[in-house]
Amino acid sequence: MLETLLYPNSIAVIGASKSPGKVGYEILSNLVKGGFEGEIVPVNPKADEILGLKCYPDIREYDGKIDCSVISVPTVSVKDAVRNSIIAGVGSIIVITAGFKETGPEGAELEREIAQMCRQANVRLMGPNVVGLINTFHKLNATFATEMPSRGGISIISQSGAMVSAILDWAAAHNIGLAKLISMGNKADLNEVDFLEALGQDEETRVIISYLESIDSGDEFVKMAELVANKKPVVVLKVGTTVAGGKAASSHTGSLAGADIAYGAAFARSGVIRALTFEALLDAGIAFSMQPIPKGNRVAVLTNAGGPGIMAADAVENYGMKVARLSEETRCELQKNLPAAASVGNPIDVLGDASAECYARAVQIAQSDNDIDAIVALLSPQAMTAPIDTARAVARVADGSKPILLSFLGGRAVQPAREELLRLGLPNYFAPERAVRALKAMVDYASWRQRPPRIVTRYPVNRRRVERIINRQHKLNLREIGEVGAKEILKAYDFHVPDGKVARTSAEAVQIAERLGFPVVMKIVSPDIIHKSDFDGVRVNLGTPGTVRDAFDLMMLRIKQRAPQADLKGVLVEKMAEKGIEVILGMSRDPQFGPMLMFGLGGIFVEVMKDVTFHLAPITADEAMQMLVGTRSYALLKGARGQSGVDMESIAAGLQRISQLVTDFPEIVELDINPLIVGHVGKEAVVADARMSLRELKK
Amino acid sequence: MLETLLYPNSIAVIGASKSPGKVGYEILSNLVKGGFEGEIVPVNPKADEILGLKCYPDIREYDGKIDCSVISVPTVSVKDAVRNSIIAGVGSIIVITAGFKETGPEGAELEREIAQMCRQANVRLMGPNVVGLINTFHKLNATFATEMPSRGGISIISQSGAMVSAILDWAAAHNIGLAKLISMGNKADLNEVDFLEALGQDEETRVIISYLESIDSGDEFVKMAELVANKKPVVVLKVGTTVAGGKAASSHTGSLAGADIAYGAAFARSGVIRALTFEALLDAGIAFSMQPIPKGNRVAVLTNAGGPGIMAADAVENYGMKVARLSEETRCELQKNLPAAASVGNPIDVLGDASAECYARAVQIAQSDNDIDAIVALLSPQAMTAPIDTARAVARVADGSKPILLSFLGGRAVQPAREELLRLGLPNYFAPERAVRALKAMVDYASWRQRPPRIVTRYPVNRRRVERIINRQHKLNLREIGEVGAKEILKAYDFHVPDGKVARTSAEAVQIAERLGFPVVMKIVSPDIIHKSDFDGVRVNLGTPGTVRDAFDLMMLRIKQRAPQADLKGVLVEKMAEKGIEVILGMSRDPQFGPMLMFGLGGIFVEVMKDVTFHLAPITADEAMQMLVGTRSYALLKGARGQSGVDMESIAAGLQRISQLVTDFPEIVELDINPLIVGHVGKEAVVADARMSLRELKK
Repeated sequence: MLETLLYPNSIAVIGASKSPGKVGYEILSNLVKGGFEGEIVPVNPKADEILGLKCYPDIREYDGKIDCSVISVPTVSVKDAVRNSIIAGVGSIIVITAGFKETGPEGAELEREIAQMCRQANVRLMGPNVVGLINTFHKLNATFATEMPSRGGISIISQSGAMVSAILDWAAAHNIGLAKLISMGNKADLNEVDFLEALGQDEETRVIISYLESIDSGDEFVKMAELVANKKPVVVLKVGTTVAGGKAASSHTGSLAGADIAYGAAFARSGVIRALTFEALLDAGIAFSMQPIPKGNRVAVLTNAGGPGIMAADAVENYGMKVARLSEETRCELQKNLPAAASVGNPIDVLGDASAECYARAVQIAQSDNDIDAIVALLSPQAMTAPIDTARAVARVADGSKPILLSFLGGRAVQPAREELLRLGLPNYFAPERAVRALKAMVDYASWRQRPPRIVTRYPVNRRRVERIINRQHKLNLREIGEVGAKEILKAYDFHVPDGKVARTSAEAVQIAERLGFPVVMKIVSPDIIHKSDFDGVRVNLGTPGTVRDAFDLMMLRIKQRAPQADLKGVLVEKMAEKGIEVILGMSRDPQFGPMLMFGLGGIFVEVMKDVTFHLAPITADEAMQMLVGTRSYALLKGARGQSGVDMESIAAGLQRISQLVTDFPEIVELDINPLIVGHVGKEAVVADARMSLRELKK
Repeated sequence: MLETLLYPNSIAVIGASKSPGKVGYEILSNLVKGGFEGEIVPVNPKADEILGLKCYPDIREYDGKIDCSVISVPTVSVKDAVRNSIIAGVGSIIVITAGFKETGPEGAELEREIAQMCRQANVRLMGPNVVGLINTFHKLNATFATEMPSRGGISIISQSGAMVSAILDWAAAHNIGLAKLISMGNKADLNEVDFLEALGQDEETRVIISYLESIDSGDEFVKMAELVANKKPVVVLKVGTTVAGGKAASSHTGSLAGADIAYGAAFARSGVIRALTFEALLDAGIAFSMQPIPKGNRVAVLTNAGGPGIMAADAVENYGMKVARLSEETRCELQKNLPAAASVGNPIDVLGDASAECYARAVQIAQSDNDIDAIVALLSPQAMTAPIDTARAVARVADGSKPILLSFLGGRAVQPAREELLRLGLPNYFAPERAVRALKAMVDYASWRQRPPRIVTRYPVNRRRVERIINRQHKLNLREIGEVGAKEILKAYDFHVPDGKVARTSAEAVQIAERLGFPVVMKIVSPDIIHKSDFDGVRVNLGTPGTVRDAFDLMMLRIKQRAPQADLKGVLVEKMAEKGIEVILGMSRDPQFGPMLMFGLGGIFVEVMKDVTFHLAPITADEAMQMLVGTRSYALLKGARGQSGVDMESIAAGLQRISQLVTDFPEIVELDINPLIVGHVGKEAVVADARMSLRELKK
């Protein structure tokens, strides 16, 4: 994957310059200083030689094979440089130069043309508008940013050049090892999906951390991210999640920020760990690159002072993990091996005068307790503390069986030890809560890796029938499918719909009601009226022929008064559903990630309490049940306040059937079952009302 | 306040030692090195002179006046040292030595004795088990921890010695200026309330940051914190907030962690800003000590790259602040003064090649826009960036009219600029989100300072009547007050209670019902039955004499079957309340902070959704209304889904009346009105059911 880009044997720099400070010089100089072992070919018609390398006036004049050409010429000359590179037979091109999509429509057009040229020639394009590319293990530094970082397991994909610079500068300051660093820029061709794929296959990459402002193709992203996350952790900081941030993001790169909920659902589905801040992104990156994935969420806290231990214990619980219960055996071992005054609970307090040896013994004992999944070790600088020795002692005994995260608190007294820890592959954080937050990312990832296999049930359904209904709508040029049509469709997908029929006259209404049996419900039918109750178009619990007749006449009268233009098809007379709990099932299509299912309890729970959950379709049985469990009102479904619970399986099945329906019919862009009435276990759930919208027809 | 402790003219060190590394040496040496300008008197019977100072065998032999004695002798000798110090006439004593309450009952007893001696002599005691005390402006470093920090506006109160060491070490590494540093240790005498008072009056202290595991006297704390917070910000990190953390805290200092909700209510009431992590505590400390309090929550973000700007905008919105709308005038000014390609929205993007001058101009323009309350300025290291010049340029134009918080991202390239920023009094943070979080603390504090005056309404009530009812309960030795008694009490405090009477026979029940008018409600009355519905002891909506008679007989029969021992007083027959929304008002007494009021919507909202708010009594009208507004279900009260709203004033008045009742009668330890039925505006709210508990009687 992306061989000529990430692992080139020869590289040309078009726009190589003799003047230090110029981008074209810095790239060449970084390539040379980085010790790149392949051929480096500077291209500049005005120079014979730069930095001791023979310079060519045109890339086409070099007679060897060039894998990758790095272009840093003025915007107007980029197109020629790309064309020449293609003629010269490169496999990939990096356009460093800016001045494209981010500047307006003209730049965007130029960018499209360049991308088109590359695509036609089967050449991959990175950029434009990038800082460049680093592969530490290939001694490749094709950036204008900085000298070569040290080698390590973190690879970075960033949509912002400034964030690339900031991360490189941070890594240099703390000697954090990196594998690949990729600045995506405007993503004219290669985007996050391509780079995820490449880094997923890259052996040196232990964790991928990514700064994203937008995702180009949600569907492909989800598929690729899931594939990669099955091999190694992917941590993403997605910015532009608020209205203000989204506005800033879109004015920045012209990329439209998708709805944050959809991103959340997509990340959850594909195993992407989401970092909420820049610091959390880097913190997680260090943890994943240096430590093994935990098996569970039971944490041992080790400390030489009460305060930090309490902070860590609070954080473990606040992040939904467990402060491990130490086994009797472990407590005994600790008692035997620690000073008498030490506390052998959890937190394990080795006391203020703890020696490095003491820390090491405690770590060893915690490592061999099967009821502990991870260790958070804290040190605060006190009179007898030996920070560096402690760092080394912990590193000596760490056997890689479970993650060890540390926080050496303070500043001057612990600084050298902090550096030593990182050097020894032990992640260290400024405060206990940050160590615990990084651990939480690991635990979340571990739990995703242990998820049950995703098997989507396919129900036997009457697909042809739905096709017919949709075709009928299309012929009538109607995008909105009202209650009658929506229920027909749902019935074809095996939903339980109350018996009923549309009446055109009051006499017909009475006739239908008598056939169905009282009581009945009556609802106006008109393609022009979506929200029936707004027009007094719903009457329930009608118990006699007389009330049915009155209701029909009144409804017709009122609608004619209030919506004289409405095309009235009649009144739907339906058998009234038995009582039960009302829930709402819905679907809307996110522009990036496709069909997103929604679940919530009916009425105020959705409208006032916003107590809803989302999941991308297609959905498994387990995921459907998780949507129920994820609501705050879940206890009501289970049966709170002395009420017996409802048939949750029937709700979960409903979500799966919708999932199948909207996957089968991409033309359905919106769907609401509101409410679905659910009864006790074993009873069919009933669709009391529903509606759908179809995609706008292509003219 | 605490003159002899914080600003002593002379100081003795009992247990002064000649051996470097020993605590008694380090304290003396720190005092000397710190340049303390008063008398320093080492006390040690085995030395004539230490560090060039004349050494005394006994403090009593020094013939000058000693303000403060610092004791660092073995635990067994502390009592003598305290006694001798008192005889020598000191004003205050610091006991550094550990081995007291934290070690068990014996240590606790010794600690009590020492505290008792000091109290009798009117000498204030700090400790035992402390790191010591620092007053940078008095050149006083009476700790064994570290050399003297530089001077600044941050004062620290810490219950953990280890956190003191960590903070000192951190401050030294970043050259953060401190005013006072107080290690409270076991708080045998002086505690957080005393130190808050002293630091509140200390002119050098601009902000107080505090690490607390427990609060000794909640009531005094709230009063003092409010007093101090009216003068300067108080930021507290309260740990031990979770079950695991609380357990760790109590095994650590023997202090029982109070319920976290009560702490939250106490902090909110007294204007204490709560930090949730150690890092947030320090971050807020820096911001408050260096920058002015903002007037509002409208933030301008200034950046030289898109990414950080988006992160900051996201954070501003996520923290509930506003990304300011720039006025037309400001946009024009920016356009005139920034490069053409700069973005003059908010975030203001000065572009990657922005000069220091460019930053300065943007800051100046933002400073003079009245619709901007605070500025967050970001810098990411790019090719043309001049971090140090930018730091200096911003400092030059900062006029102190609104807070400026910065985040210079990266590592090596910005490190010197970060140090320069702190030196220039400009707070800098590793990532944009942290700058915004610190700003949020400032905005919260500002908003508390601008709160309306706290005027607690006193309603005219029948206090004597409540006294009589409580006395009656006391005489019967009954702690639980059932529905009948509770309603009598509430009626005396002007609550609206349905008409009703207790019936002893079914005939009497019918008679009462006929007098009240149908329909009625009937409820069993027994001091032994608290939860009436559990015993089938509630019947509602009884419409005829026959149903009333049946209900009475059935109720009596069932109760006798199910609770044969219960002392049956009869059945309460009440006029049935009109329909309305059910809410719950409650009160429980927190052991630390006293009466805490609770509000929530009835039924599932409290039990399932946990949608409740709390506030310490006594409460103002504004605070009572805030309790309503603070629930997620508030929209239901206001009138959601086409329903008209309820009389919120009547709920708020109910909360205030309860507040008055439980303030008047401390013997009421629990109270529940469940439900209070609330109707539309102007309609009295009705107490449908209620109960109370009284404090256990002292035998």
